[in-house]
Amino acid sequence: MTAVPQAALQDGPLGIICGAGTVPFAVAEAALRRGRRVMLFALRGWADAQAVAAYPHHWIAVGQVGRFCKLARAEGCRDVVLVGGLVRPAISQLRLDWGTLAHTSRIIRSLHGGDDHLLTGVGRIFELEGFRLIGAHEVAPDIAAPLGALGRHRPDGDAERDIELGFSLLAATSPFDIGQAVIVARARVLAVEAAEGTDAMLERIGALREVGRIGLPHGVGVLVKAPKRHQDRRYDLPSIGPNTVAKAARAGLGGIAVVAGATIMAEPQRVVDLADRSGVFVFGRPDREAGP
Amino acid sequence: MTAVPQAALQDGPLGIICGAGTVPFAVAEAALRRGRRVMLFALRGWADAQAVAAYPHHWIAVGQVGRFCKLARAEGCRDVVLVGGLVRPAISQLRLDWGTLAHTSRIIRSLHGGDDHLLTGVGRIFELEGFRLIGAHEVAPDIAAPLGALGRHRPDGDAERDIELGFSLLAATSPFDIGQAVIVARARVLAVEAAEGTDAMLERIGALREVGRIGLPHGVGVLVKAPKRHQDRRYDLPSIGPNTVAKAARAGLGGIAVVAGATIMAEPQRVVDLADRSGVFVFGRPDREAGP
Repeated sequence: MTAVPQAALQDGPLGIICGAGTVPFAVAEAALRRGRRVMLFALRGWADAQAVAAYPHHWIAVGQVGRFCKLARAEGCRDVVLVGGLVRPAISQLRLDWGTLAHTSRIIRSLHGGDDHLLTGVGRIFELEGFRLIGAHEVAPDIAAPLGALGRHRPDGDAERDIELGFSLLAATSPFDIGQAVIVARARVLAVEAAEGTDAMLERIGALREVGRIGLPHGVGVLVKAPKRHQDRRYDLPSIGPNTVAKAARAGLGGIAVVAGATIMAEPQRVVDLADRSGVFVFGRPDREAGP
Repeated sequence: MTAVPQAALQDGPLGIICGAGTVPFAVAEAALRRGRRVMLFALRGWADAQAVAAYPHHWIAVGQVGRFCKLARAEGCRDVVLVGGLVRPAISQLRLDWGTLAHTSRIIRSLHGGDDHLLTGVGRIFELEGFRLIGAHEVAPDIAAPLGALGRHRPDGDAERDIELGFSLLAATSPFDIGQAVIVARARVLAVEAAEGTDAMLERIGALREVGRIGLPHGVGVLVKAPKRHQDRRYDLPSIGPNTVAKAARAGLGGIAVVAGATIMAEPQRVVDLADRSGVFVFGRPDREAGP
């Protein structure tokens, strides 16, 4: 068997299905820097219209699998990356087209379960249609979080213990397909993310602190984010950006810990600058799940 | 060895250390109905002053272990029950007295960890001082949640699966000493309780529903509460009351599931009435941890 030449696989533009947030554009920029053309498939209601306008793009509605396949084939896309926040669509909000209807029972089944099921369900449909689904960290390795402390601040001994506790808890909740983040402070779990998302969880901790429900000094506590264990990393890797750093600082935390190489960092330079200025650390822990 | 006569153990009033909420008074009423005298030790800043006034009582500050021991001995209390919400006090807010200072390092250690550690730490101090710590469900078995559906409504097949998923998740997070409640809807975990408490978690789900972030029909989803596994049930059993039912209904849930016999139900009749009127079920699952 001969290896498929890299150039053949990379023929045609990279299709980027864009959910919410800035990460899709960070991925697009990283691909462009590596000489890859891109074609954005912006999800109506989720993707940032102003940012989308700067790239070649098509708008699609959530659930328009048939329309996506037709457009992507016409554009010559074979590789597809799914990136950005996508709040689970209500079944009633899904706009099913003919191409989707052929797969409807699969989609409906994927909606009965956590986000992971939803994403892998949709991903499998793309593969059945002949597309190759690839991970954002493969397309854009330069925006994956590096190993160790990023910037000036680093976790102290207490924070290191909180980080390990956070990763252990995330490993325990991983089979339940819930959020990918927790907040731990001095060996106490303050918050576990589920449907609300990381930002809302950080805001909640800030609010609890304000009303005196969390009696810990400022600068204590860590936001820990991790991909689900054994998760297919082509779907929904955790991401952090300047906004995450700002919200962690506002919640009075000491820092953020992620898995190096398995976390997308939108705008890494702004993350570092803001972390340095706010006195919070951003720490990339070695990836204990990565194969040899 | 001869059994200690029941009367001897019950000599003297039952000491009830009262945190927040209505559960302490439900426990007091249940004890009084069984012919037991009570003496409330109301925690300043936590216990409901108006409700406390209806019973023989003393006010104590959180951390005044020495003062509590002196008062309780003077009142002839030997049995003590710890009941009601108690937000983890900030170390700076603890009012340490001489009796407490003797145990300070133990208390400080107990503050580094989840609520379970805090409570067992304080509980051990009482036992060292010669008190017998007993569980609210032992003092007041008639306000423990019964087995099966309470009231008119009962879980359907989907809700039954959500209930089992919720209990499994709580079993998985139990070693991490976090909250005792989760919300599950159609096999998706919507929320996991930690420092915010059950009420705030329910309000969050209501808010996410309002902004369309949870696209599920009204009446879908279950609040699942359980004691921690292998937890000493003399401390901090989960409780529900009319307020829990009202908040669950407002969050659009279909019902509430608890562990029968291991959940305190303040005002059971009001719980049933409100559940019936709001169309939510309250379901007591068999206690799989109870010994023979």
